Amino acid sequence: MLEKLLADIKPLDGNAMQTAQARLDSLVKPPGSLGELEGIAARLSGISGELYSDISKRCVIVFASDNGVAEEGVSAAPQEVTYIQTLNFTKGITGVSVLAKQFNADLIVVDVGVNADIEDAAIQNKKIRKGTWNIAKQPAMTREEAVKAVMVGVEAVTDAVAKGHRLIGIGEMGIGNTTTTAAVLCALTGLPPDQAAGKGAGLSEEAYRRKVSVIQQALELNKPDHADPIDVLAKVGGFDIAAMAGAYIGAAKCRVPVVIDGFISIVAALCAAKLNHMTRDYMLASHASFERGYKIAAEALGVTPYLHLGMRLGEGSGCPLMFAMMDAACAIMRDMGTFEQGNIGEEYLEEVRDADFHIRGL
Amino acid sequence: MLEKLLADIKPLDGNAMQTAQARLDSLVKPPGSLGELEGIAARLSGISGELYSDISKRCVIVFASDNGVAEEGVSAAPQEVTYIQTLNFTKGITGVSVLAKQFNADLIVVDVGVNADIEDAAIQNKKIRKGTWNIAKQPAMTREEAVKAVMVGVEAVTDAVAKGHRLIGIGEMGIGNTTTTAAVLCALTGLPPDQAAGKGAGLSEEAYRRKVSVIQQALELNKPDHADPIDVLAKVGGFDIAAMAGAYIGAAKCRVPVVIDGFISIVAALCAAKLNHMTRDYMLASHASFERGYKIAAEALGVTPYLHLGMRLGEGSGCPLMFAMMDAACAIMRDMGTFEQGNIGEEYLEEVRDADFHIRGL
Repeated sequence: MLEKLLADIKPLDGNAMQTAQARLDSLVKPPGSLGELEGIAARLSGISGELYSDISKRCVIVFASDNGVAEEGVSAAPQEVTYIQTLNFTKGITGVSVLAKQFNADLIVVDVGVNADIEDAAIQNKKIRKGTWNIAKQPAMTREEAVKAVMVGVEAVTDAVAKGHRLIGIGEMGIGNTTTTAAVLCALTGLPPDQAAGKGAGLSEEAYRRKVSVIQQALELNKPDHADPIDVLAKVGGFDIAAMAGAYIGAAKCRVPVVIDGFISIVAALCAAKLNHMTRDYMLASHASFERGYKIAAEALGVTPYLHLGMRLGEGSGCPLMFAMMDAACAIMRDMGTFEQGNIGEEYLEEVRDADFHIRGL
Repeated sequence: MLEKLLADIKPLDGNAMQTAQARLDSLVKPPGSLGELEGIAARLSGISGELYSDISKRCVIVFASDNGVAEEGVSAAPQEVTYIQTLNFTKGITGVSVLAKQFNADLIVVDVGVNADIEDAAIQNKKIRKGTWNIAKQPAMTREEAVKAVMVGVEAVTDAVAKGHRLIGIGEMGIGNTTTTAAVLCALTGLPPDQAAGKGAGLSEEAYRRKVSVIQQALELNKPDHADPIDVLAKVGGFDIAAMAGAYIGAAKCRVPVVIDGFISIVAALCAAKLNHMTRDYMLASHASFERGYKIAAEALGVTPYLHLGMRLGEGSGCPLMFAMMDAACAIMRDMGTFEQGNIGEEYLEEVRDADFHIRGL
């Protein structure tokens, strides 16, 4: 089923992108002068197939799960914080809750494996198990569980799109997940653990050294196959990151733009791109996370973040900020006047265009 | 009068910033994990003196003027585009018009010296003269005119604040103003013209070389005094950039946050900071302009842009995007729950705080 999904992903609509570019170049500004806002507008057309994209109904999906490796003391926070914060999301008091509301996005919380019984109608119960096994001692999960977690992500996005959402952000909550994510990044890229691991939500120097050695141990013990992202997710990943990888696949399948948040979100995106490189065309980076491995993952994925805010909260908190930039891109496409409407002659336009091509070639 | 204004500028409210920081650290997230959003929120408190800043009523002020140096062929666009675009701002079809509307900001257009008779109630008539003189042949204006232009900016902001605006963005329209601005930057910093000048809104290689030599000529002929920003503005600046410098001074005087747009906007900010360094505390950079001299000016001013979008339109078009980020900062301060409200114990908080101080010290 996952293989069929992956095979069904289509490239962007080239005709729609050409039409979009022609309109952008006709607007009353030097061609290209709105930079990435123009690139984003054109890509949204390539994704939806429409000149004017409507992304007004959107959501951030937060995948919450516990990670067995937390017992190694790799996180500043106790494991129960996963459970507490999962409840807090629905109360509207966390970072992503507030930012999603500020930028008119819904927040969808999916429990993929929180280590607690949660009975809350506002939280989707897709629990695979109460947390993964400890990757320092054994694989995080079976291969079957990994595929199941990926499908949770696919279905969460498919469901959101069926409800009318046309823009998705991907976030997470899971104590210990910067450790599993760094292990996944190392397995996929061959990077040594001390370059992939950061200080998460606040680690002492001693705990950081422990984290690096735990990742090293997990890689040596489980021997994930770098060419098989599902094997990597199963052996050293988590239910959260696996579901997130699935969410990117779901977005590409449904042809909706999907926004990457921080470190965990971007490594999940990298897993999706390794499963099918075309998923990347549907992804937009948001902010450059302060977490050490982010930059390496962004380079491996081939995306560039737009917002430089030194954020390192996770939860999907950077996604709504990017939604606002995408709103700006849509507004330009929809509301700016053309050179003709602006009473500026073709002659000027031609001169600036010639020069602009020169600039683009720099 | 300008001297009195400059002497009256006060530093930020340190007590308000401490109270703001204490609240930020009590919110249900690892302290500091929302990065610059937290820094912005604290600074807004330092500016307004209040814990919760209300920046919902805000505007971008566009200063429009012609520059005599345009006759040297330093711009891809003919001079009349200044006039045409000044009218287009009020029609809502330009880049800044659309982006201001998208992010709930008013657009205020001030004619400081457009080379045309404008009778439009939507455009403030503060015309000093129909364009400056050509800096390649003589000073742009007299010292008295430079002070008058600065005061136009001070008054435009004072007036906007009197009407209830609590956040200001600073933009411009003036064919030829990347040339005058590069000359001002060279005069203030000693930078050679080929490093300060960029390709503006679209210049051929030949026209670019002409632009660099025009700047060199203007500096050699007029000999602006680098220690006297008013002298620099008068000799090689323009009415637009001078008024913008005044707008930053007005914002500091009125204690409202003020957002920098691109190259011209940031060099005007640098002029204001050279007149009184405390004006800088009221300024926020927005996007990293693609125009060559922006980065040098940002370093000289000591500010860091948050948005990396490759924009180079001007008009103040980057300001509304930053308004959205500032809305996010205010929302966090106002709407996030505390650790107590989030049912996370003090013990966890202390542990993360200790680690966080370690991270901040990196």
